[in-house]
Amino acid sequence: MTEQALRLDEAELRGLLDGRWAHVREQARDTVRGELFAPVHGLSVDDHRARTLTQLKALAKTDLPAYGFPATVGGSDDIGASVVGFEMLVADLSLMVKTGVQWGLFGGAIRALGTDRHHAEYLPDVMSVELPGCFAMTETGHGSDVQQLRTRAVYDPAAEEFVVHTPDESARKDYIGNAARDGRMAVVFAQLEVDGENQGVHALMVPIRDREGRPAPGVRIEDCGPKAGLNGVDNGRLWFDQVRVPRTSLLNRYGDVAADGTYSSPIESKNRRFFTMLGTLIRGRISVAGGAGSAAKAALTIALRYADTRRQFTRPGVDGEPDQEVRVLDYLAHQRKLLPALARTYALHFAQEELVTRLHELSRSAEGDDHAQRELESRAAGLKAVATWHATATIQTCREACGGAGYLSENRIPQLKADSDIFTTFEGDNTVLLQQLTKGLLTNFQDSFGDLDQLGLARFMAGKVFETVIERTAAIPLIERLVAAAPGRGEEADLYNRGWQLELLEDREKHVVEGLAGRLRRSRKDGSDAFEVFNRAQDHVLTAGRAHMDRVVLEAFVAGIDRCGDQATAKLLNRLCDLYVLSVVEEDRAWFLEHERLSTARSKAVTQAVNDLCRGLRPYAVRLVNGFGLRDEWLAAPIALGSEHARQGDPPPARG
Amino acid sequence: MTEQALRLDEAELRGLLDGRWAHVREQARDTVRGELFAPVHGLSVDDHRARTLTQLKALAKTDLPAYGFPATVGGSDDIGASVVGFEMLVADLSLMVKTGVQWGLFGGAIRALGTDRHHAEYLPDVMSVELPGCFAMTETGHGSDVQQLRTRAVYDPAAEEFVVHTPDESARKDYIGNAARDGRMAVVFAQLEVDGENQGVHALMVPIRDREGRPAPGVRIEDCGPKAGLNGVDNGRLWFDQVRVPRTSLLNRYGDVAADGTYSSPIESKNRRFFTMLGTLIRGRISVAGGAGSAAKAALTIALRYADTRRQFTRPGVDGEPDQEVRVLDYLAHQRKLLPALARTYALHFAQEELVTRLHELSRSAEGDDHAQRELESRAAGLKAVATWHATATIQTCREACGGAGYLSENRIPQLKADSDIFTTFEGDNTVLLQQLTKGLLTNFQDSFGDLDQLGLARFMAGKVFETVIERTAAIPLIERLVAAAPGRGEEADLYNRGWQLELLEDREKHVVEGLAGRLRRSRKDGSDAFEVFNRAQDHVLTAGRAHMDRVVLEAFVAGIDRCGDQATAKLLNRLCDLYVLSVVEEDRAWFLEHERLSTARSKAVTQAVNDLCRGLRPYAVRLVNGFGLRDEWLAAPIALGSEHARQGDPPPARG
Repeated sequence: MTEQALRLDEAELRGLLDGRWAHVREQARDTVRGELFAPVHGLSVDDHRARTLTQLKALAKTDLPAYGFPATVGGSDDIGASVVGFEMLVADLSLMVKTGVQWGLFGGAIRALGTDRHHAEYLPDVMSVELPGCFAMTETGHGSDVQQLRTRAVYDPAAEEFVVHTPDESARKDYIGNAARDGRMAVVFAQLEVDGENQGVHALMVPIRDREGRPAPGVRIEDCGPKAGLNGVDNGRLWFDQVRVPRTSLLNRYGDVAADGTYSSPIESKNRRFFTMLGTLIRGRISVAGGAGSAAKAALTIALRYADTRRQFTRPGVDGEPDQEVRVLDYLAHQRKLLPALARTYALHFAQEELVTRLHELSRSAEGDDHAQRELESRAAGLKAVATWHATATIQTCREACGGAGYLSENRIPQLKADSDIFTTFEGDNTVLLQQLTKGLLTNFQDSFGDLDQLGLARFMAGKVFETVIERTAAIPLIERLVAAAPGRGEEADLYNRGWQLELLEDREKHVVEGLAGRLRRSRKDGSDAFEVFNRAQDHVLTAGRAHMDRVVLEAFVAGIDRCGDQATAKLLNRLCDLYVLSVVEEDRAWFLEHERLSTARSKAVTQAVNDLCRGLRPYAVRLVNGFGLRDEWLAAPIALGSEHARQGDPPPARG
Repeated sequence: MTEQALRLDEAELRGLLDGRWAHVREQARDTVRGELFAPVHGLSVDDHRARTLTQLKALAKTDLPAYGFPATVGGSDDIGASVVGFEMLVADLSLMVKTGVQWGLFGGAIRALGTDRHHAEYLPDVMSVELPGCFAMTETGHGSDVQQLRTRAVYDPAAEEFVVHTPDESARKDYIGNAARDGRMAVVFAQLEVDGENQGVHALMVPIRDREGRPAPGVRIEDCGPKAGLNGVDNGRLWFDQVRVPRTSLLNRYGDVAADGTYSSPIESKNRRFFTMLGTLIRGRISVAGGAGSAAKAALTIALRYADTRRQFTRPGVDGEPDQEVRVLDYLAHQRKLLPALARTYALHFAQEELVTRLHELSRSAEGDDHAQRELESRAAGLKAVATWHATATIQTCREACGGAGYLSENRIPQLKADSDIFTTFEGDNTVLLQQLTKGLLTNFQDSFGDLDQLGLARFMAGKVFETVIERTAAIPLIERLVAAAPGRGEEADLYNRGWQLELLEDREKHVVEGLAGRLRRSRKDGSDAFEVFNRAQDHVLTAGRAHMDRVVLEAFVAGIDRCGDQATAKLLNRLCDLYVLSVVEEDRAWFLEHERLSTARSKAVTQAVNDLCRGLRPYAVRLVNGFGLRDEWLAAPIALGSEHARQGDPPPARG
């Protein structure tokens, strides 16, 4: 990378990053202000919960909740806007998650799994928070393996009621948001039994508290107590002791029970029905990926503004210049901590925008495109996993990069870390999600209905020919043009050649997925049992999922830069994109060496290029984080807002 | 690795791990019990501070504080015991750190930098906590770069007093433990000015509060407020406004001022004097490495006991066996998260024991061996860095491995994470420490006095010949025998051959350090300035430090196993050692490929070997963590103590 100066048009960058739902972001910037929404720390659990509910009710008076709901009940039916609105609530992640529980999970389940009568009866009160509610899916014994939930809902035709029951401790509902304090109603996921037959997991509306806050008859509620973070959200446990609810409480879009006890469903296969129902709930997972991105952006904004000013150790003056203390961001080690993370945060931002757009479009299309739906689910699983792991790692790095200042609650990073820490395992455990993605790749989204180790996979293993199809996901003509123009595999290609980079990541994905397919089938033929075969390849499975996401995220970054209206800014973003892709390659360069995709000399050159890019991008770091447009009052960290500058007598930091 | 059953003698293992200071560990197990010392969560900052002080005072009545102090004041002068005692306080890391502040830093500085009169006057009250005190070194503007502290202590010969003063905001003392609430006296590090000449940083005893808790005249105190963790420790800020203390307040072992204002010191060079003074404080850094180890052990004990019982997803029965849910530790992905971390925790345990032994021996040797002292400082810097990074990463992984349960405060992992998070940057920022280690390697500990970019380094760069000398550090004859018996570089060596493994890590260290030396000297000859040359190689510098520590830690592990009295147990530990070294190699296999130390086939075989070792060690995981001997009441996490077992109707977990 040449060291010539690059320019950055801040308005252009902001517009590009704000993207299609810029108006929602602006609205959040206007709304989430002042004392009511200011970040806080050190509150007691009770005070934090009360504050969060107050904030939620204040948001209920804005346009925000309407986005997620249909026009029939007064919503504005803009799913993309609902996801983007969620991710902007970074001033307090407790509020972010509380809105997610109330409007996304609770309201979203009623919307997706219920029918008009449920919409009309409940959704207006869900939006207004007149009816706070829970999404009671996870049980103590079953989190990832939802299909094995043990709560039962048995139909009693005589009374035309369902009897909801917790048969044992494994079946208690656990970690349920809104359960410990505020929720009055819960969408309860249970094994539906009709006339002695189990129809699989279905959801029902079950009252859990009256207006005075007393538990409903037959419902036992326990507080999960303090957590690492998100203490503004009241997570709790629920037990049901033969709780009776009317027949109409069943959210009956995908399965209904007539008064006489006849079960019917538009989807015959129980397995397919189950995964179809789960698939409608994909928005929560996508929202978490966005929320994780916001947390990472906030931490990076704080750490980079601080690093740009903080000084330590003296650099001897050259040619008679006086000695001076070095800004910590001028150290290569510090750049390496923060700048590749910044590049990846940008890349993930564009990937998230693309995923939200797909979700949004699919929600508007008249009738389901099964292939597109399954691809969306796979992508959501993969992006949620990589985005939340990235956030956890990045915020950790930011903490360390800020030293003791990063450990003080006043500087916000501790809260960002603690709050977002659960993101890697809630709304789907990341390791499970990456495997789900890889299974989708193996089956090319043709038949990814099936649980982790059976059915689909066994069927796949029995097959013969396998060839990965790289499905390009963004700006397809552009990507194809770039790849076509790439020089062939070999030494001569410039490391900064985008086509070569794209081809390199595509090639790795294809090789890893095909290698996995071959390995699974070969082992299977040895007569080993399917579980053991798959388990022994589990590291390979996870590698495949990561390789796929690295490629998809790169394509989204390339497509995003292509939308940039200012050439100079695009040029700068292209350097940032180089840093993203080359740090991805560097991280996994052992693979590229093992598979002779990089020579040893070229592999070393990648490391050097990452160093060069860090040095070249360092002067733009603060403006690049400011581009995210997080309000200073959401950051609230003195070290990011001028305290260090003031101490040193420097001008205040450039702001977003 | 063969899958034949291995045996483990639990008493033998405990004895081996408890090591030389087993009696101190046993004493801690007997002492730290009951309501008074039980882990707590969710306390307010005020309540937590009060509780921690109460605990500290209770410990003051035991033998624990005496270890760190000389017999002349009633101590038992057993430095090794003092470090081991510290690391056992894992029931609440606030207590661990509070004892470190009071006895290690405050008392330790008086012991190391003061002379008999200070010892007699202060140390008895330090031990009894009659005099709670602070180690006031770090300032807001200077943490890592202690030599640039700005607090001044100017000698006034007329009054025979020092005037201690905070000239500006950069110079306020920051993050000082015991300052916000309890401390009455502080060891204040300040630039000593005598007769207009700056003699460099020295330490003085300065009263900061009276017995009623009122700030001393001229002293301003501010609370740092809530932190991510360690809220039982009262960190604060201190400002001094022309505070006068008697001449005898100077801790005068390395520099004294006569009544008439004559400065004298046994060490002429200011730079050497400074680093000698800092060197005497090395115990704090070594203690932190040990404390980090304990936190990692606690988290692993919780996560592995849980993973051994927790089940998710069903494995179809083979040959007519019923289906069964799989214990999560039976998944390769879960093994890969936790078992290499367990292996490294063992390795670091033995490295810590060895380092503590060296510190202890050196503290007993009549007069200073400069080379040994500098090597100790380098080793302490390196081990502190790798042990604390390991703890942070491991506890994070344990959190994720426990899913939602790992996010609940009742299961202890959140507190372990939050409390230990600062370990990577306090008592020396890890990045700075690793560089310090590498500088020591470059100069072969001959002349590592000097700050980060000047003097020693510039001198080094001007040199010519350089050859790394691998100084073996533990069980030297054994290691030499193993290395000598290793097959030559190449394909034929067994991956499990210990000699080959040792030689591989030695070779990498030598190559990285020599390559760095050559690079620095070549660039320097180009006429680039020293700062720039060093900065551009900073990633290389850090790699060198890590490579060194990987080798040293392996040697300690090998030496530790050699002390094991039971053959079967030793065999199991040898498998664990294989997992340690092969996961180190796997992590950095890109380097071994780039430098043609591993062929591509062999590199892939390393990954397979790590998988095999994980599978083979899985049945022993719980007994291996139990070997650490952390009391159940220190862990206190229901998921580690039978709640999950009870729910599933399993027998309770094996205990340590």
